Formats: sequence, C-alpha cells, structure tokens
Amino acid sequence: MGNFKGHALPGSFFLIAGLWWAVKHSLWYTTRRNRSVGAGRLATRALQHRLEIIEGAVMLSFSVIGMLAEQFAAGGPKFHLYNSSTEHWDKLMNWQHTSMYLFFALAGAMSLIVHSTDAAPLALDRLMMGLAFFNEGFLFLYHLHGRDMLDVHIHMLLLYATFGGALTCLLEIFHRGNILLELLRASLCLLQGSWFWQIAFVLYPPSEVKWDLSDHNNMMFITMCYSWHLAFALLAVAIAHATVLCVVRSKLRRMLPMEMGLLKPQEKEGDSEDDIL
Amino acid sequence: MGNFKGHALPGSFFLIAGLWWAVKHSLWYTTRRNRSVGAGRLATRALQHRLEIIEGAVMLSFSVIGMLAEQFAAGGPKFHLYNSSTEHWDKLMNWQHTSMYLFFALAGAMSLIVHSTDAAPLALDRLMMGLAFFNEGFLFLYHLHGRDMLDVHIHMLLLYATFGGALTCLLEIFHRGNILLELLRASLCLLQGSWFWQIAFVLYPPSEVKWDLSDHNNMMFITMCYSWHLAFALLAVAIAHATVLCVVRSKLRRMLPMEMGLLKPQEKEGDSEDDIL
Amino acid sequence: MGNFKGHALPGSFFLIAGLWWAVKHSLWYTTRRNRSVGAGRLATRALQHRLEIIEGAVMLSFSVIGMLAEQFAAGGPKFHLYNSSTEHWDKLMNWQHTSMYLFFALAGAMSLIVHSTDAAPLALDRLMMGLAFFNEGFLFLYHLHGRDMLDVHIHMLLLYATFGGALTCLLEIFHRGNILLELLRASLCLLQGSWFWQIAFVLYPPSEVKWDLSDHNNMMFITMCYSWHLAFALLAVAIAHATVLCVVRSKLRRMLPMEMGLLKPQEKEGDSEDDIL
Amino acid sequence: MGNFKGHALPGSFFLIAGLWWAVKHSLWYTTRRNRSVGAGRLATRALQHRLEIIEGAVMLSFSVIGMLAEQFAAGGPKFHLYNSSTEHWDKLMNWQHTSMYLFFALAGAMSLIVHSTDAAPLALDRLMMGLAFFNEGFLFLYHLHGRDMLDVHIHMLLLYATFGGALTCLLEIFHRGNILLELLRASLCLLQGSWFWQIAFVLYPPSEVKWDLSDHNNMMFITMCYSWHLAFALLAVAIAHATVLCVVRSKLRRMLPMEMGLLKPQEKEGDSEDDIL
Repeated sequence: MGNFKGHALPGSFFLIAGLWWAVKHSLWYTTRRNRSVGAGRLATRALQHRLEIIEGAVMLSFSVIGMLAEQFAAGGPKFHLYNSSTEHWDKLMNWQHTSMYLFFALAGAMSLIVHSTDAAPLALDRLMMGLAFFNEGFLFLYHLHGRDMLDVHIHMLLLYATFGGALTCLLEIFHRGNILLELLRASLCLLQGSWFWQIAFVLYPPSEVKWDLSDHNNMMFITMCYSWHLAFALLAVAIAHATVLCVVRSKLRRMLPMEMGLLKPQEKEGDSEDDIL
Repeated sequence: MGNFKGHALPGSFFLIAGLWWAVKHSLWYTTRRNRSVGAGRLATRALQHRLEIIEGAVMLSFSVIGMLAEQFAAGGPKFHLYNSSTEHWDKLMNWQHTSMYLFFALAGAMSLIVHSTDAAPLALDRLMMGLAFFNEGFLFLYHLHGRDMLDVHIHMLLLYATFGGALTCLLEIFHRGNILLELLRASLCLLQGSWFWQIAFVLYPPSEVKWDLSDHNNMMFITMCYSWHLAFALLAVAIAHATVLCVVRSKLRRMLPMEMGLLKPQEKEGDSEDDIL
Repeated sequence: MGNFKGHALPGSFFLIAGLWWAVKHSLWYTTRRNRSVGAGRLATRALQHRLEIIEGAVMLSFSVIGMLAEQFAAGGPKFHLYNSSTEHWDKLMNWQHTSMYLFFALAGAMSLIVHSTDAAPLALDRLMMGLAFFNEGFLFLYHLHGRDMLDVHIHMLLLYATFGGALTCLLEIFHRGNILLELLRASLCLLQGSWFWQIAFVLYPPSEVKWDLSDHNNMMFITMCYSWHLAFALLAVAIAHATVLCVVRSKLRRMLPMEMGLLKPQEKEGDSEDDIL
Repeated sequence: MGNFKGHALPGSFFLIAGLWWAVKHSLWYTTRRNRSVGAGRLATRALQHRLEIIEGAVMLSFSVIGMLAEQFAAGGPKFHLYNSSTEHWDKLMNWQHTSMYLFFALAGAMSLIVHSTDAAPLALDRLMMGLAFFNEGFLFLYHLHGRDMLDVHIHMLLLYATFGGALTCLLEIFHRGNILLELLRASLCLLQGSWFWQIAFVLYPPSEVKWDLSDHNNMMFITMCYSWHLAFALLAVAIAHATVLCVVRSKLRRMLPMEMGLLKPQEKEGDSEDDIL
C-alpha cells in the first residue's frame, strides 16, 4: 500500500525477524561451542526443533496477516484482479505486495513441513527463504516505472538488502550452520526492516515538511543514510550476540561446579582455530 | 517461429522435462536414503543407468524434432541461410531457434555418451546442459531489438529461468547429487515451460481479444504473473516429490517384514542432519 | 592493430593454446585414471614438469612477439607514448593491445617461476592466467566508443569468452585438476581464437564485398554465429579428448601383458563415480 | 575532500596496508611451510596474535584520523549535517567520505575484538573488512552524478579494486589462510592506493598543465593506465613475497645445523602438491 502503514508493517516484520535470528543463531552457536561443559542442557535438540517449528508458524501467520492487510485495508482490491468496467487490472500495487508476502508464506509453510516431518531435506527451508527474498527483490525491480527520482532510488537501495539476503540464504544451503552467514542474514534483515521505516518517513512524512523528491542532494544524503542503517544493523546484531554470549556464560558458571574450569574448552577451540590462521 | 505453436512446442518439452526431473531425482533421493531397508531393490544401479541413457536419447530426439520443425514448418528456411536474390540472411529467427535446439541436442548426445561408455567424466552431462541453457538465454538476449515493450519484457523474464537453470547445472558439477539443486533445476525448467505457454497466450491469443503490448499496466501484471508461475512450479515439484516419497514408502512397507522397523533409519538420518543444524 | 593480421595473430595464438590445453589435460586425466595399469610410465611427473615449463616459456615468447608486433609493425608507436607535437597520446590502440599481451607475458613468466622453482604456491599460474584474461576483457570493454554498431557488438561477444575464461581460471584455483574446468577453459580459448579470425574476416574482409556494419540483420546473424563457434569449439575439444583417450588405451594395451585385464580398473572407477550419482 | 590531499591521504593508507599485508601473509605462509625445520621459532603464535591486534589498532586509528581530517580540515562540516540557514544538507561529500572511513574503523575495532577476546568467531574480521570495501564502492557508485566524463570514469575504475577486494575478503571467510586470496587482497589494496594517487595527480595536478576532462583519448589512456597500475601492484607483491622468502630461508639456514638438510621438507611438500596437479 502506498502509505505510511504499508511500509511500517513489513518494516516491523523484518526488524523482529532480524533480531530474532541474531538471538537464535547466537544461542545455538554458543551452546554448540560450550557443549562439553554442559551447555547442551540449556538448549536441547528438542527445544531447537520446537523453536524452528514455532518460527515457521509465526512466519506463516505474519505473511498471511500481510496478505490480508494488502487485500482488505482501505483501498485494497479484495481479491478482485480485473476490473471489467474500466477494462484494467485492478490495484496492481496491492497485488504485487500480496505476491511478495505469498512467497514468505510459502517459506514459512516449508519451514514447518521440514522441521515437523522428515519428508523433505533440511536445507529446503533456506532455499525457500532465499527464493522469497529473491522474489521480493525481483518484484521491486520492475515496480518503480515513472515515479520520482528519489522514490525510485530509495526503493532500489532496498534491493541490496533483499538480493544480499537471498544470496546469503543460498550460500547457507551449502554452508549450513556457518555463524557468519547466519549473522549476516540477520543484519541484512534488520537493514531491510529499518529501511522500510526510513522509506515510510521519507515518502509519507507524518510531519508537515515534505521531502523534495527530485533534489539531487537528497538522493546523495539517502545513499549515505543507507550505509548508516547498515552500520546500525551490524551494531545491533553485535550487541545481541554479545548479550546472548554473556547470559549463556553466566548461566553455565552458576550451573557448573567451579573446579571444572569453565574457560578451558573455549581456549582450546580458539587455539585450534588459530591453526588455520 | 513467431506463432502460437512455436512457443507451445518448446513449452511442452520443458514442462515434460521439469516434471520428469522432479520425479527422477525424488526417486533416487528416497531410494538412497532408504537403501538400508531394501530400497536399493526398487531402483537398482542398472535401472538408473538405463533411465539416464533413455533420458539422453529422448532429449536428443526432442531437440532434433524441434530443429526440423523450425526448419520445415510453414515459413521455415529449409536450411537455406542466405537469400542471394534479396542479398539478405533468410529467416534468421528460425535459424536462431534451430541454434537453441542444437545445443540441447548436443547435451542429449553428450548424456548418451557419458552414461553408455566410460570415455568421458560423469559431470560432462551437467556442463553441457548448463551450456545449453546458457546458450538459449544468450540468443534470447540479443534477439528482441525493436519489438513492442511487452514482447521484449515477457521474453526477458524468461532469462531468469534460463540463466538460473544454467547456474544450477554448473553448481551441480561441483555438488552432484545435491537434491536441492536437482529440484531447483526441475522447478526452473517447469517455470520455463509454463512461461512459454504464457508467452504463446499473450502474444498470439487464440481468442479475439488482443493484449495491448505497450500498456504499462500489462507489463506490471505480467511481472507478477511470472512470480505466480514460479510459485506453481515450486508447488508442482513439491507435490511430485511428496507423491514419490509416499509411493516408495508404501512399497517398502509391503515389501518388508514389519518387524524390521521401517522408519528407524530415516529418523536416525534426520537426527544426524540436525547435528549440523 | 586495426587490420586483418592484428586479429589473425592473436586468434592463431589462442587456437594453438586451446588445442594444446585440450590435449594436455586429456592426457594427464587419462594417465591419472589408468595409473594402476601402468599409465604412469607414459606420462611421468618429470615429463609433466618439463611440459609445464616449456608451456610457460612458449606463452612468454608468444606474448613478447605480440607486443613487438604491435609496437613495430607498420604504423606502430615504437614505444613512444606521447606525441608532443600534436599534444596527444600516440597510437593508443596499439598501446592497449600491448598491455593485453603484457599480462599474458606476466602469466607465462609466473608459470615458468612456479614450475621451475618451489618459491611460489602452485595455483599462482592459474591466478595470473585468470587476471590476464580479465585484463584483456577489461581493456576491450572500454575500447569501443564511437565505432560502428556491428564492430562494437562483435567485440563485445568476445567478452563472453574472455570473462568466461577468467572465471574458469579463478575457479581452478580452488578446484585444481578438475578435468571439466580444464576442458571448459580449452573450449573458451578455442572460441576466442576462432572468433578473432571471424572478426578479421568481418571487419577487414579479404574479398571485395564489405559487410554492412549498421545492418541489424547482420548483428543477429553474428550473434548466432558466435553460438556456432562455441559448438565447434566444444566439438574440437571433444575430438581431441577422444583421440588422446584412444591413443593412450592402445599404447597401454600394447605395453601390458593381456592377462592383466586392462579395462577393470576403469570400470571400477566408473562404478564408484556412479555412487555419487 | 575534493583536493589533492583528500585523495593522497587514503591512497597512502591503502598503499601501506597493501604492502603490510603482502609481507605479513608471505611471512606466515613461509613459516607454515617450514615449520618442521624450526621456522615456528621465527614467528610464534603469540607473535601472530600480537601483530593482528596491533594491525587492528592501527587500522582503527588511521580510520579515525581520516574521519577527523574529513570533518575538521579546511572546509569540513565539523559534524554539522544540516545547514538550517540554506535548508540544505551541508558538505555531503565530506560526510560520505566520513562514512567510508567509519566502516574501516568498524572493521579495525572488530579485528581488535576478534583477536584479543574469544567472544566472536575468527572470520568476522574478514567479513567486516569485506563490508568496509563493499561500502566504499557502494558510496562511490552513487557519488559521481553530473561530474566530468573523465572524473566519473577515473572514479569508476576504482570500483574494480574495491569490489574485487570485497569479494576476496568474502571468499576468505570460506578459504581462510589461502595464500593466493591473501596476496590478491594485498595487490588490490595496493592498486587502490596507487590509483588514489593517480586520481589526485589527474584531477588536481600540482603542475600548471591541466588534463582535458572531456577528451576521449585521455579516457582511453587512463583505462590502460589502470591495467599498468595493476601490473605494478602484482609486481610489488611478488617482490615483497620473494624478499620475505629469502630472508626467512637465510635465517633458517643460519639457525639450523647444516646436516638437517634444509630443503627436504619443502621438496616433499612440492611433490605432494604436484599430486593434485
């Protein structure tokens, strides 16, 4: 929907997803590295399974909410595609947004199937997620004809995050469990979320002052702004990672008898990683 | 050939190939995963070999049929390349389509050679298939000068499927037997097939109502349509995969004494995959 | 040099290199696969070393010949870069071609160093070769301003082969000894060589009939022609590979006592490859 | 800053970084290969750790110097972003350069954290470095509107080095310790540094003679010049590598009793590499 809420809604979805991924993958990573000192008790495999299923269900329901909002909110097409009175396609914008949500719904459903049955190969959830990001970028790419310069540019910048996210997901098919790719995906998702909010504020400012959509200076500022959003997304993921790390360690310290020497296994692992340096 | 049949013919070829690949690779995948419970008896290596050879032969003959249809169907060049009376190249469109089929014929022939002799490395069939898809996209890319906007756009969208298929094949050289890449290739092939039919219906509609080839709204609708075709292709592959899985399992269940505990090895494998999670 | 010979010379170099690579890598591949039946005696490691050194030396000398031809042939700049009388850079075309040859000379020199000393990591020869192909494509890319449409197009098509070759070389850094990449590199090199000859014949035809450089039909024909060149390059490499295979096998058959069962080890290896199918 | 110093400063930073990387990675590589003959004593793990930490600290401080220079040098914005009197963004150029430095500062800080604590996965330093290069290229890409042809072109050429550097860093995440990628990164960094100096001399020549920024000949010369810079960067890295190799070998020779047979282990390793040939 070409209004403030239509950008704030997906923005919030992506922000939540990005933060959730940063926390989840940091948690798995730290428990994996501290398994020998009993971290396995903090995050058992059964818990992981259940969380993945919940994540899939939430993604599916958010996407369905998005689709319904696009269709039935004020000015939506209410599932009419063709307006026979004007002989024109009806509200194509809303339909395009619905198609974007559709692929995220498919990704959520696939994640549900993959983690609750053993019918499908595990990596299918990443493949579908990658296709969902790709499809979002693909539709944005052909969706901006004839708008103002800044409007086009600000949406184009979004493509770096969506195609970057798609690429990261596709790489994860071959490098599943690589913490760097997982954190990168979380960062790009956060970037996308915060950028949707930025778009909302630039194109539909709640205040009286409107942006000049054809000023070249504004365009240069927005480009720079994007790199700041990326910096903030990286910072947010770093903070989430550090927080999870601290919480897990302090829990482990309380859980374990002191004489076990909490930090040894980590140091050892650090050394062995240095070997490949 | 710039007519309905000239697009419906390759469309049908691709649809058949995509469905066939989805079924074949799902079958190999499920037998591989259930080998320990006797699934090897369902799909022996000899059967696999024979099917690969048949596939190569069918691909070769389909491609030759396509080449002959382009050359000898009404208005074809009948292998005359240069028209010396008009001092012009003759029917370049048909020749370009013939060149596209030619590479698929080469890929079929190479697949025949690879699987029936031991002279060539196994992955050559994927390399040639990748080159065939690439060549198809390459020729389409330089083949659309001066046509209507929608005509160009609708052919350009095809390139996502062809270049995507080429990339998937090339990745398979290094990750042979990866079920995700195989299903992705099947999906992209189905997408290409159904899109050829879509092109046929848009550019040469059998009904009286013609599409307005320079309407911007139509272009946006077609873009969205493409993402729906992708969704349907993914769905079709998913259904094919699930059907094969069910059939194999029920066959195994009948074949095996009940006490062997059919589902155990699958659960075990599922767990071990979770370890890399 | 913008004349027939200036395109035929590098074309011949690339044709020779492509054929040589197809033969060399096929030979190494077949001896590697038949090592257990004594093929190691046909191509010892010492021979491999010596051939690699000779190859480097030949590449270096060919490139130096090319550089000197560009500088001193009729109309060459004779190493003068700046013409102070006209206050202009002098014969920039020849200088650009010299720069292209320069990188191939560097690649040849690096190959010499890598294979005759143990100072540098082995894969450096592929990295430099990749950079040489990349640099060739890079210079062609910015070298065509303001020429005729067909002239630009025919040179642009060359970029597929050069950048493809560069990519193949860079992939070989990580997958050294992969026969598919080696044959692909040979094919792309052959394609480049035969395309240089095609350019020579189109832009500087020896006959009286000139091509119309702004005819759209010619452009479409040339594009299709490129795909035919690729098909012929693939065919040539396939024939070279098959010939080498036959020669090696017949030599082995004569060399070995018959009772050793010549074909067994190959069949075994074929089977084990089928396992990954 | 659009002046000579504003290009010479980052140019010098990149030149120093490139040379330093060439020396550092050559040193690690040669000590790794000669570990069995006591090279481990030359470069212990503790030393490696300390050098990585120093490198991070130096990168951080250089970047902060760059940021402060952009903000407070003559004509800098002094951290004012919006000029409310003119209702315009203030000195966006300087702000963009500050953003570029910001990401290198983040990369330096992350390198410090990664190597001085065990909180973060090791490869994060390469990921952040890759993002810093990418961000630099990204901002340059949208930063050149409405300038002279040669000005745009000369900055665009820089993108090959920055995006190439970003790609190399991202590949290093998966292939850490690959000497080829490390030397390639050093070369691209040197290329960037020397190219910044070239830009400074072309756009703000210290002599009286100005370059004609819209002359097509100059553009072609500059393109060729870029390939020469690349050749020199490769040469510089090669010389640095060879020097380090010689120094390490002569040190080992003095350190070790002669009868240990210094060159054996290297020859052995050379042979084993030949096996993969």
